[in-house]
Amino acid sequence: MIRVAVDAMGGDHAPSEIVKGAVSAVSKSKEIQVLLVGQKEAVSKELENHSYPKEQVEFIQASEVIETGESPVNAIRKKKDSSIVVGMNLVKSGEADAFVSAGSSGAILVGGQVIVGRLKGVERPPFGALIPTEKGVSLLLDCGANVDSRSSHLVQFARMGSIYMEHVIGINKPRVGIVNIGAEEEKGNSLVKETFPLLKACGDINFTGSIEAREIPHGGADVIVCEAFTGNVILKLYEGTGAVLVSMIKKGLMSSLRSKIGALLIKPALKDTLKAFDASQYGGAPMLGLKGLVVKTHGSAREQEVCNSILQCLTFKEQKINEKIKESLDAKEQAQENA
Amino acid sequence: MIRVAVDAMGGDHAPSEIVKGAVSAVSKSKEIQVLLVGQKEAVSKELENHSYPKEQVEFIQASEVIETGESPVNAIRKKKDSSIVVGMNLVKSGEADAFVSAGSSGAILVGGQVIVGRLKGVERPPFGALIPTEKGVSLLLDCGANVDSRSSHLVQFARMGSIYMEHVIGINKPRVGIVNIGAEEEKGNSLVKETFPLLKACGDINFTGSIEAREIPHGGADVIVCEAFTGNVILKLYEGTGAVLVSMIKKGLMSSLRSKIGALLIKPALKDTLKAFDASQYGGAPMLGLKGLVVKTHGSAREQEVCNSILQCLTFKEQKINEKIKESLDAKEQAQENA
Repeated sequence: MIRVAVDAMGGDHAPSEIVKGAVSAVSKSKEIQVLLVGQKEAVSKELENHSYPKEQVEFIQASEVIETGESPVNAIRKKKDSSIVVGMNLVKSGEADAFVSAGSSGAILVGGQVIVGRLKGVERPPFGALIPTEKGVSLLLDCGANVDSRSSHLVQFARMGSIYMEHVIGINKPRVGIVNIGAEEEKGNSLVKETFPLLKACGDINFTGSIEAREIPHGGADVIVCEAFTGNVILKLYEGTGAVLVSMIKKGLMSSLRSKIGALLIKPALKDTLKAFDASQYGGAPMLGLKGLVVKTHGSAREQEVCNSILQCLTFKEQKINEKIKESLDAKEQAQENA
Repeated sequence: MIRVAVDAMGGDHAPSEIVKGAVSAVSKSKEIQVLLVGQKEAVSKELENHSYPKEQVEFIQASEVIETGESPVNAIRKKKDSSIVVGMNLVKSGEADAFVSAGSSGAILVGGQVIVGRLKGVERPPFGALIPTEKGVSLLLDCGANVDSRSSHLVQFARMGSIYMEHVIGINKPRVGIVNIGAEEEKGNSLVKETFPLLKACGDINFTGSIEAREIPHGGADVIVCEAFTGNVILKLYEGTGAVLVSMIKKGLMSSLRSKIGALLIKPALKDTLKAFDASQYGGAPMLGLKGLVVKTHGSAREQEVCNSILQCLTFKEQKINEKIKESLDAKEQAQENA
């Protein structure tokens, strides 16, 4: 049994789609108990619309809401009764195993570090986003937590990402690539040049060298390591390019009678294809290296993505990802002391 | 009349597609004379396959070829009779107005600075790539020339890019955006935070603030400024995501008889749509801020892209872009001296 605190107030479609996602998750798994954190009236009104196993959904009151535009540090400090702060405190106290939110990234980031806290030895906890590729799915990290990272941070991202992909997603010896502007070792900016030999020297990961951005959608690496500015650009451009291409294709299909008829015929096949390239089916971005699990889903998340983000927590807990990250960091520390 | 030196030996499809592109360009414009630079036998064999106005195509011998894998600095220094060095020397001596190459980016970059030389006052000449958007086309710069740029470089990129978009592409008061991971001024890494107020203070450009990567394919800015690592990631991811989505859609369309019939019907409409999102129709990436014009086209460029890259030089020359860049920088210097 795992207890997942869910921010009922965060995201563009809160609370309705969040509640739907939570209900959907408990219907899919008997192993999950959801603690819906939010404003009583809004949440209970939504809950009334659904039937679900009552013992698997609990309501936790939080009177305040952190808005996207607020300063994250101030919001976390001052809005003690916000859904994000209350939810994270549930993780801190052990009342919940995980916290899922579609709310302010900044507040989740600050709250994760300040309230939930970092695992010993973790320098900077990254956001890891699962992105769809031609071959399946890759983990991109850091995709937004820490700008101006150092090389030692990137090495930890690679380690934590490998553990996640191996044990949560089930990829044997995940290939780790560092985002670069050419394939050769001497290419890159100073951060990449500094990080490359450090990754190469890691015995515990399957480092396969540089990955050019062009290769990311082809599935050129399972764990894609970069600093957060680059990662955020990749993640958002991925979404933007996909959305624009799809909308242009749809518009193109409406341009003549002939293409309109064709469009009707291809609709089911096209839908399946586009679904495979839709980030929402993979759930949210876990913040790795914290004492508990914090998952950030898209602000635009709807039922399915929220549900998948909650289900994802189950594998994370079952596979003891945090324990494995701790072991990996301890082993590294031990090796350094022995050296 | 403009004289364009063309590297007949550079790129994946040299010399055949390069020669085709050159022949196509002179057939389209009486104003262009092409100097085809390369190995005599290979080039003349290709030329024999085409009919074209002989007085508009001249052959210039260059016995060596710089390969993509070579160290750019060494290659430029040692291969004095390579098509890139010979072509750039034609620009330096004034025998050619421009040089177009699909060869090694690194060698073009080094050659541009060392042989053609920077305009007085230009700190770092960037590569500017034209990328397709939902609304038309945007200029992304720097997309690969200078890693680890400083804020003053980015300000110059913004100025030079604005001049290019206004006078070569014909966009009135082009909107300048800086690539960032959020819309607010306080967001970003240290480089962006430092550059933002400098751009805001520029009276001579239409700075519209931060642009998130998601907005780039929507045409959120006409001139998109960033340092080269980020720019290169954007450019390559753009190409990669487009290619993968299109190939997945094609595969999806072949999945059933119904969708196969539909695919036949939508083919013309789909082709038009995808063409609008195809970077090759916009020609190459000019290296801005040099004493002559140097244009880098994709290594994979074929006839049409080569042709467009050559035609683009005509507008560049007619619009006196370099003179305008010089004026802009001189005015800036003057203003600083007066202050």
